[in-house]
Amino acid sequence: MFIIEAVEALESYFPLSFQESWDNSGYQIIFKHNILNGILLTLDVRMETLQEAIENDCNLIISHHPLFLQPLKNFDYTFYPENILYAATKNEISIYAAHTSLDIAPNGLNKYLCEKLSLKNFAMLEDLKPVFVGELEKEQTFSDFLEFIKKTLNIPVVKYVLSHNKTIKKIAICSGSCADYIYKLKNYNIDVFVTGDVKHHTAIFAKENKINMIDATHFYTEVCSKDILFDCLKNLNIKIIKSCKDYIPWDYI
Amino acid sequence: MFIIEAVEALESYFPLSFQESWDNSGYQIIFKHNILNGILLTLDVRMETLQEAIENDCNLIISHHPLFLQPLKNFDYTFYPENILYAATKNEISIYAAHTSLDIAPNGLNKYLCEKLSLKNFAMLEDLKPVFVGELEKEQTFSDFLEFIKKTLNIPVVKYVLSHNKTIKKIAICSGSCADYIYKLKNYNIDVFVTGDVKHHTAIFAKENKINMIDATHFYTEVCSKDILFDCLKNLNIKIIKSCKDYIPWDYI
Amino acid sequence: MFIIEAVEALESYFPLSFQESWDNSGYQIIFKHNILNGILLTLDVRMETLQEAIENDCNLIISHHPLFLQPLKNFDYTFYPENILYAATKNEISIYAAHTSLDIAPNGLNKYLCEKLSLKNFAMLEDLKPVFVGELEKEQTFSDFLEFIKKTLNIPVVKYVLSHNKTIKKIAICSGSCADYIYKLKNYNIDVFVTGDVKHHTAIFAKENKINMIDATHFYTEVCSKDILFDCLKNLNIKIIKSCKDYIPWDYI
Amino acid sequence: MFIIEAVEALESYFPLSFQESWDNSGYQIIFKHNILNGILLTLDVRMETLQEAIENDCNLIISHHPLFLQPLKNFDYTFYPENILYAATKNEISIYAAHTSLDIAPNGLNKYLCEKLSLKNFAMLEDLKPVFVGELEKEQTFSDFLEFIKKTLNIPVVKYVLSHNKTIKKIAICSGSCADYIYKLKNYNIDVFVTGDVKHHTAIFAKENKINMIDATHFYTEVCSKDILFDCLKNLNIKIIKSCKDYIPWDYI
Amino acid sequence: MFIIEAVEALESYFPLSFQESWDNSGYQIIFKHNILNGILLTLDVRMETLQEAIENDCNLIISHHPLFLQPLKNFDYTFYPENILYAATKNEISIYAAHTSLDIAPNGLNKYLCEKLSLKNFAMLEDLKPVFVGELEKEQTFSDFLEFIKKTLNIPVVKYVLSHNKTIKKIAICSGSCADYIYKLKNYNIDVFVTGDVKHHTAIFAKENKINMIDATHFYTEVCSKDILFDCLKNLNIKIIKSCKDYIPWDYI
Amino acid sequence: MFIIEAVEALESYFPLSFQESWDNSGYQIIFKHNILNGILLTLDVRMETLQEAIENDCNLIISHHPLFLQPLKNFDYTFYPENILYAATKNEISIYAAHTSLDIAPNGLNKYLCEKLSLKNFAMLEDLKPVFVGELEKEQTFSDFLEFIKKTLNIPVVKYVLSHNKTIKKIAICSGSCADYIYKLKNYNIDVFVTGDVKHHTAIFAKENKINMIDATHFYTEVCSKDILFDCLKNLNIKIIKSCKDYIPWDYI
Repeated sequence: MFIIEAVEALESYFPLSFQESWDNSGYQIIFKHNILNGILLTLDVRMETLQEAIENDCNLIISHHPLFLQPLKNFDYTFYPENILYAATKNEISIYAAHTSLDIAPNGLNKYLCEKLSLKNFAMLEDLKPVFVGELEKEQTFSDFLEFIKKTLNIPVVKYVLSHNKTIKKIAICSGSCADYIYKLKNYNIDVFVTGDVKHHTAIFAKENKINMIDATHFYTEVCSKDILFDCLKNLNIKIIKSCKDYIPWDYI
Repeated sequence: MFIIEAVEALESYFPLSFQESWDNSGYQIIFKHNILNGILLTLDVRMETLQEAIENDCNLIISHHPLFLQPLKNFDYTFYPENILYAATKNEISIYAAHTSLDIAPNGLNKYLCEKLSLKNFAMLEDLKPVFVGELEKEQTFSDFLEFIKKTLNIPVVKYVLSHNKTIKKIAICSGSCADYIYKLKNYNIDVFVTGDVKHHTAIFAKENKINMIDATHFYTEVCSKDILFDCLKNLNIKIIKSCKDYIPWDYI
Repeated sequence: MFIIEAVEALESYFPLSFQESWDNSGYQIIFKHNILNGILLTLDVRMETLQEAIENDCNLIISHHPLFLQPLKNFDYTFYPENILYAATKNEISIYAAHTSLDIAPNGLNKYLCEKLSLKNFAMLEDLKPVFVGELEKEQTFSDFLEFIKKTLNIPVVKYVLSHNKTIKKIAICSGSCADYIYKLKNYNIDVFVTGDVKHHTAIFAKENKINMIDATHFYTEVCSKDILFDCLKNLNIKIIKSCKDYIPWDYI
Repeated sequence: MFIIEAVEALESYFPLSFQESWDNSGYQIIFKHNILNGILLTLDVRMETLQEAIENDCNLIISHHPLFLQPLKNFDYTFYPENILYAATKNEISIYAAHTSLDIAPNGLNKYLCEKLSLKNFAMLEDLKPVFVGELEKEQTFSDFLEFIKKTLNIPVVKYVLSHNKTIKKIAICSGSCADYIYKLKNYNIDVFVTGDVKHHTAIFAKENKINMIDATHFYTEVCSKDILFDCLKNLNIKIIKSCKDYIPWDYI
Repeated sequence: MFIIEAVEALESYFPLSFQESWDNSGYQIIFKHNILNGILLTLDVRMETLQEAIENDCNLIISHHPLFLQPLKNFDYTFYPENILYAATKNEISIYAAHTSLDIAPNGLNKYLCEKLSLKNFAMLEDLKPVFVGELEKEQTFSDFLEFIKKTLNIPVVKYVLSHNKTIKKIAICSGSCADYIYKLKNYNIDVFVTGDVKHHTAIFAKENKINMIDATHFYTEVCSKDILFDCLKNLNIKIIKSCKDYIPWDYI
Repeated sequence: MFIIEAVEALESYFPLSFQESWDNSGYQIIFKHNILNGILLTLDVRMETLQEAIENDCNLIISHHPLFLQPLKNFDYTFYPENILYAATKNEISIYAAHTSLDIAPNGLNKYLCEKLSLKNFAMLEDLKPVFVGELEKEQTFSDFLEFIKKTLNIPVVKYVLSHNKTIKKIAICSGSCADYIYKLKNYNIDVFVTGDVKHHTAIFAKENKINMIDATHFYTEVCSKDILFDCLKNLNIKIIKSCKDYIPWDYI
């Protein structure tokens, strides 16, 4: 099987036309007609990821995050992400990103999160894609809901904004770095917004508008993208590995 | 003394012409010729802050963060920040923000941080205002430097990106939410970048380009703005209070 | 009845989606869930209008002209229109504008004018909304038509541009400040254009392109908006008053 | 003398570099090396003006208002201003406009108006060119000042906005169609603003911000441009005529 | 017959709505209700063309290239193209351009070229209008194809880029100055691209991406527009002449 | 010597700050701290150029034309110029472009051309950089001047626009693809404009405005950039080769 055939199989699930205008979903580096040896699935493409691919004889990396969001016209391979381009070129490793095409797709990342959290009556907000809103089957205290998120997504440390003490029923959720959507979510009457990369100003805004907010981290809300990709590709009759070099890039002290 | 006179005294230190083009430093709400009873200094203006001002008979709030970064043309006082406008209007409380005018000023916030951390040979980067770069008097391990930052800025939990294990000598620092400057800092040969609101992509970029990063939080890198403002205003012969309602808007579990 | 219910009743006639892209039709200040005591209808919202509302115990002002066309981020209540915001806030008066949503609506302001002038075969120009073109039942001299306009709209002083002496049959009409549409109307073969706020350059252009022009004033072409609004709201079972503080803002000597 | 020489003489007083960025001061149509027979000075260039030039054997028209503010790429000579281009081309009449280059010049139109009204201590506002602010030698009632303007500028009908009844001392003045400058003039503490083409919204704004406003008409504040131009050109040893076809393009009933 | 009637006949074939957004197809100068004496068809409108029209008593020139692509607001008739405007105005010659409206039309210029070259299965590329792609009935050597183009379009000197030596089957063609489309044509798997105005960078790009390129000249790919226009107008019962003053504007040495 | 040292030597003659805003002068691919083996100078970087560098053991290519004018974010190495990036990466060849920084420099390409053509009193036009205007020592016929250009620049075929038959004295010259500057050169009273990539519309404009034009080709006006670069670098004590794979990318038949 050629590299390009695996890409076409993936795009039948997550067409590039789904992606947002600013995104660079699609191939980052491609050797279309090389024979596919194996696929490595990953959230991020870092130097360790590339080495893992080489060691496992995988010559196609499928990541969630694009390697190149900013286009390049000067190449100094001592810097990231140019260094990845160098190593991928030397070793003929293709790299493909399924980013917002995966976030938004009908069977994509945010739908997966809703199901993982057992939400009911969930749907994507037409005016605020790809945010989903849904409901818990049974109301919970915020403290119980926090524990539930932490355990379900397997997050070591959860940051949260406590803005009210009402029970939790109506949830908005958006994987990755969607905290700024809080400015529009104020009109949707939600109890809590689950996302990643919550910043000071978004936290203050949530607090004062009486919306609880859970920073489930960019990493732990998106690392499951590997599972979704695996399910779509597993019938391809090719070796597929989920990276074990993906980890959250920070610690706490 | 009129409200406007206190404002003019402050602007002699931090002229509005210093602010960045997108900012709204300056008065947010002003009753210029009301008699000044007292000044409340704060990082953020939240409803508790306004109540604190009223309870302490302060009719001028000087904050670091502007209440209105987005201009308004429809007023529904059930939402923040419009609700603050309502309460300030009812109670004739003036609100003034010294934001990027304070960050950039020669005796402003980032210079204050450099001094607090006992940096040597520090200066603002001309091409990357208001980032400062300076040096530690003596090289330290990253672990020691982390503890030093945590203790000096009094931060309960510090998030950090460990990208290398070299000793730390050359520091870049920028208060608030400046993590995106990492994309340009790669050329400055620094050992660590101290700022707030570090996100997944900025952390990955730092990690791969071998720059350590310390998220000293937006809050704890800027809460000292109250001390700077106090020093400038203390000779005004008027009551000045530092808010005790300022706190970091999140917790961890 | 809540304030918001009266607003919804009005928007069933003049939906906000009708308004032009630059407009700010809709609520200017709203206390959605205050109990509605009475409605004051007005063309402009000036300080006298607000006092009239208070004296008549009306806590909802519905105006034609928006109070805020320019968004605000600095509030000094010594100036208009901020002073109106101050007074409305103190007294919990809601203000709502039905502006271009009213001009363009099928049963809106310009259609009303066509009927008031007994035009036949009138319709809005698809390429030049909200200008209407229609015909007089019987041709008239321009002098007779001028007198007819003056009397029908009750205008004390009418300014006019005499560009030809042919009889008048085909009329273009647009309420408010639409004189600049003359630059496109040259292709429509009209005898006279009735609007307000006619300026020197638009008058010269009309004169040289042989189109008569009648400045029926911004005020007298739009003051009838109160009657249209009254008709839509009269079945609400609430007190509705037409402002008697609306007057043309200038005199002649 | 060639046409181009008269133009150069004029530009020594009013260089094109003075004009505003949106303006088209300068030649509209030029036959540079035709022999100059005579100059007709005018405010506007209309068909009657062109005929007057031909009848008086003047082959250079110098106007205040540019004939072409909108550039052209399709020429149908049945419309104005293309019809003027046709007639000027057929008859080899050159047309030149001294517009904002004349408004702003040190010895230009607005300075002329200040002197005509015997103002003291007048100067152009650096931030609001070409508005001038100056003072009356002696305070007057607004009614007296109105009569003085009407008589001095010889205006048949003056429109005015009465916003306060204080005596008049500090005057802002700007020829032509500058009513929108009122939005910035609110900070200059003036008693009255004299300009032309005052519209409903500018009148309401002035009224509510307590600034009187006099619409001395676009025509009568600028028709004096002919006198200024005459003074600059009179030593050229060529026939110079002031148009007697210039008149205000409207009447009142 | 009036001038305007001939224009309307032409626009029934090539409606102005077909033209590209940056174009100025349509009348350049028009005397709509002058009686039509005769039509001169031309590629370019130069001074010789105008004289030819006058000498042949044609008062309507229909060209492929618009005379005015840049709009004008200052007229000095010593320069081209203003000098043509002068002469056309003096002599009441109307000028009309059928430019991209002709290129793109179903029976327009590029379809004509495909037929002239006996291509099969040709069609306009939906994403790259007005480029057509089609096939030769029988494969040829590039050398034979070059000779065929030279002879068929009657071109004295043909410039060409030889990038490969494969036989030629699949052709892209676009009249005029379309060489920059090569940057997108790399994905269409064509053997040769025929157009005009081939520049250094487009030639290098074609060479390196293994696409042969034939610069059949802007002139010889578009001079046939006269034949297309003639066919559409020949039933009008009016004199129609094809200009014999059209020639390629350069020579070689 | 490191690669970066040769680059710094070059930039002392042609600083990157000289380049135009749209340009990408500077390194295209760089291995800064590789040891420099040899330098290949070239006009264009094509695959043959890269092979020549490898065969001659040169690991730095200095070209006039940038390899990457359009930034890239998707890499498929089957296309040019990505294929060059692939090969340069595999072989660790650095590529640097001195483009508009060389055109404009005081001792740059256009000055070199003026000297080569023995022009007198030449200078760059301040308003039309990097066009130079100068004079021939002695007037010539256009035919003689054409021959002189052809022979001096060694051009096999020269395309020219004959617009007048006056003798030639005043010359404008601009290397590369500068034909569009003709639209502004009409005011400079020149006899002939020498440049490359002359297109139909620029030729027609020149012809009608009576300016002769010589298309000395993009290639032959810029291939001399290798000589200029050689002179600047020859003292570096390193092997420097001028590419013999540079040739004009087209032929004529």
